[in-house]
Amino acid sequence: MKFTLEEIAKLVDGSIEGDPLKEINGVNSLDKANSNQISYAVSDKYKESLSSSSAGAIIVDKSLKRHCKTNAVIVENVYLAYAILSQKFQLNQDINNLKYGSEKSYPKATIAANCLIGQNVKVGNNTIIHQNCVIEDNVSIGNNCLIEPNVSIQIGSRIGNNCVISPGAVIGSEGFGNAIDANKKWHAIAHLGNVSIGDDVSIGANTTIDRGSITDTEIHNGVKIDNLVHIAHNVIIGEDTAIAAKTGIAGSTIIGKRCMIGGAVGIVGHLTITDDVIINATSTVNRNIKKSGVYTGFIPIMLHSDWKKVGIWLTKLDKIASFMKIKLKNIR
Amino acid sequence: MKFTLEEIAKLVDGSIEGDPLKEINGVNSLDKANSNQISYAVSDKYKESLSSSSAGAIIVDKSLKRHCKTNAVIVENVYLAYAILSQKFQLNQDINNLKYGSEKSYPKATIAANCLIGQNVKVGNNTIIHQNCVIEDNVSIGNNCLIEPNVSIQIGSRIGNNCVISPGAVIGSEGFGNAIDANKKWHAIAHLGNVSIGDDVSIGANTTIDRGSITDTEIHNGVKIDNLVHIAHNVIIGEDTAIAAKTGIAGSTIIGKRCMIGGAVGIVGHLTITDDVIINATSTVNRNIKKSGVYTGFIPIMLHSDWKKVGIWLTKLDKIASFMKIKLKNIR
Amino acid sequence: MKFTLEEIAKLVDGSIEGDPLKEINGVNSLDKANSNQISYAVSDKYKESLSSSSAGAIIVDKSLKRHCKTNAVIVENVYLAYAILSQKFQLNQDINNLKYGSEKSYPKATIAANCLIGQNVKVGNNTIIHQNCVIEDNVSIGNNCLIEPNVSIQIGSRIGNNCVISPGAVIGSEGFGNAIDANKKWHAIAHLGNVSIGDDVSIGANTTIDRGSITDTEIHNGVKIDNLVHIAHNVIIGEDTAIAAKTGIAGSTIIGKRCMIGGAVGIVGHLTITDDVIINATSTVNRNIKKSGVYTGFIPIMLHSDWKKVGIWLTKLDKIASFMKIKLKNIR
Repeated sequence: MKFTLEEIAKLVDGSIEGDPLKEINGVNSLDKANSNQISYAVSDKYKESLSSSSAGAIIVDKSLKRHCKTNAVIVENVYLAYAILSQKFQLNQDINNLKYGSEKSYPKATIAANCLIGQNVKVGNNTIIHQNCVIEDNVSIGNNCLIEPNVSIQIGSRIGNNCVISPGAVIGSEGFGNAIDANKKWHAIAHLGNVSIGDDVSIGANTTIDRGSITDTEIHNGVKIDNLVHIAHNVIIGEDTAIAAKTGIAGSTIIGKRCMIGGAVGIVGHLTITDDVIINATSTVNRNIKKSGVYTGFIPIMLHSDWKKVGIWLTKLDKIASFMKIKLKNIR
Repeated sequence: MKFTLEEIAKLVDGSIEGDPLKEINGVNSLDKANSNQISYAVSDKYKESLSSSSAGAIIVDKSLKRHCKTNAVIVENVYLAYAILSQKFQLNQDINNLKYGSEKSYPKATIAANCLIGQNVKVGNNTIIHQNCVIEDNVSIGNNCLIEPNVSIQIGSRIGNNCVISPGAVIGSEGFGNAIDANKKWHAIAHLGNVSIGDDVSIGANTTIDRGSITDTEIHNGVKIDNLVHIAHNVIIGEDTAIAAKTGIAGSTIIGKRCMIGGAVGIVGHLTITDDVIINATSTVNRNIKKSGVYTGFIPIMLHSDWKKVGIWLTKLDKIASFMKIKLKNIR
Repeated sequence: MKFTLEEIAKLVDGSIEGDPLKEINGVNSLDKANSNQISYAVSDKYKESLSSSSAGAIIVDKSLKRHCKTNAVIVENVYLAYAILSQKFQLNQDINNLKYGSEKSYPKATIAANCLIGQNVKVGNNTIIHQNCVIEDNVSIGNNCLIEPNVSIQIGSRIGNNCVISPGAVIGSEGFGNAIDANKKWHAIAHLGNVSIGDDVSIGANTTIDRGSITDTEIHNGVKIDNLVHIAHNVIIGEDTAIAAKTGIAGSTIIGKRCMIGGAVGIVGHLTITDDVIINATSTVNRNIKKSGVYTGFIPIMLHSDWKKVGIWLTKLDKIASFMKIKLKNIR
């Protein structure tokens, strides 16, 4: 699939600075795009990557245009323009090409009844795939893996050796990214990245791991993930980190090595958590953690009758402090 | 299926005020029931709907009887009586009537291998249904939808146009409503409502949306729902609201338009949240929100060693206040 | 499968005190192991069970050796040794032995298309199993059960009478237990226990219940569990307890009878909660609850602008108290 910049500009209601006949055949991140691909920059956080990008063209708004050293497509809402464009380059497969395991030839693997397997799928030696799994096009699964029943592994996901994926897990689902237009309507970003899972990883029942928007969501070697965990697009989980059940990690957050994340923890997006961090169950992480250690953030459970009395003051701590003429600097 | 009031009274251990031979063929809400249907009222919050209902009969307790202008079935525990009765009117399907997609005729849709489709199912033009989906009786799916692998869409659910449902999602599962009897045993309410989903809705991987108890659970146009979200029975989500992963919304809560609900938020039941409300990740919402704005409720994360010190005081805020002779009125 | 203690000691890098030729054919808990099985003790909490165990051998570290009255395998890291050993005794099934429902003979049950059923599976009278379920070897399902689409019931799970399992639920998934070695690499414990579910239990859509490590995870009669709930290995839920959606209960926690656990509650592992406890939605339970009553632990939601002001003080409560010269003993 190819579009000229002229066609792209029309599609996203933008203007061109550069060559309108330049042909574009894909989308990529600023630092990975080649001269036939288009990229985008949403804020001046990206101005350096923007200046040094090898992309064939870049979508920017007026304020960022001057940092763009290649063809520019100038729009009002960069993220919305990207959402519209990503739909054009969306990954497609012919779902009627998925064949039953028994019609495919993986003589060194064991593939149970009712598994449906796409085109260009690799399944390693001694790997076992249980019943009712759907393995889409271009997936690769290493040696000695165990894929349990009712698992969906979506287009292009890569799984290393010695991995276990428990029933009902979904690997490579579309990320949750939506651009908003002037009428407050959402436009979904088509996610063109993949999920990349290392060796010796285990993934729990009904856990979901979204594919990346452009680059991949990455689960490194030795990571252990429990049931009903959500890993959003472009999250990176470092080696040998363990994540207990019901935890959710929002988009683009990077977690270090050997971390232990308790159950039902919520980690917001775009954070960086260093190596060897332990986060206790049900905590909310809403800031970077730069120092290894044990972290906690939840309210102790009490009799509801007590909680009702305490709760009134919880929401007025700033006013208590000011009434008591306490200043932060004095109590440090 | 039909029962006389006499038969119903026997079933639920009640007495009749009115015509014991009156025939009833279904259950409905006070404001929607017709003269052949029975309804129920559990508290005097409903006394006006009770007085004006067109139902053929209404289950009430002694205290509400005087507000009932039609045949009454009088019981001690209305909700329990309804639970027992709802089981009688339960929606049934012959599961052996579900046919493989390829045996059904949807020439304008693409239906992959191993999909099983019930009686009286509509599938719109250009809609794609991936492998291993189960689409039960009386479901309707609009045009241009994408239903991904291993999705279950249960009896009577309605899905609009241009919707995306990610792998493993469950649409129309039975709601969690149980009445308790005098022996502290639970009796499940059979949920007779459906799930009604508008146009341009997306639903994430392994998300579950329960069907309504009597009326429908409603997801309006343009709503975007992420992975592992739980939407309980009779919840209504307004247009263009976005809900991030791992959030749960309890029964009968109504959420306005253009809200943005962060990840892992817990919203309790029977609340009303107005339009244009933003709720930050992992907050608990336990009261109505009448004013648009940004809301938050979680405890900041700290080193566990700090949390242990802070936690002691967190549960004693009311006592701190009284020790310091702080009064709420003084600090407002 | 049989190993001599000599072989076992080699496998786990341990030394033997006792008979190196003693043959072991399985693993069990200290109080249930027979003279052909091996058990293990990780801390001196278990010293009494250790002394009175009928096991043929017990894995211990040096400090616990003196309490062992039978053959001992002495290692540095008991849990790691057990992880390695458990893999050897892992439950296996030939997944190609799972047959379509229609090829199996359950004349008194209704089994829909695309269900795959293992060896030695019992399905009771009037039980209905919907499409695309996978029922593994040695599972037993009672009478009058309803198993909805896309459910996975893994090896050896036992389900009583009159149970309902909603779509996408996973029963008997491997528990999340990993031992860490000296290089900070995880070694999964192979879970050899099962899930045991009583009568009149309902389990919600996409809920996951892990099998026990050695003994079983137990869900007693009359328990009602909502959607997207996680029940970890070796949890025991008492009769007639109800658990709302999105709650997670960590390993080995014991919950009493007639409890009502709200939505999105997090309960940490190894706790005991007595009968008739009500826990409000989204609370974290991190201590035993010995007295029935209503418990709560969450932070009230506020305008984000208020939360930012309050949050600063929330994390400094101990310092406020010390600045104000408040002592805990004075405010009790």
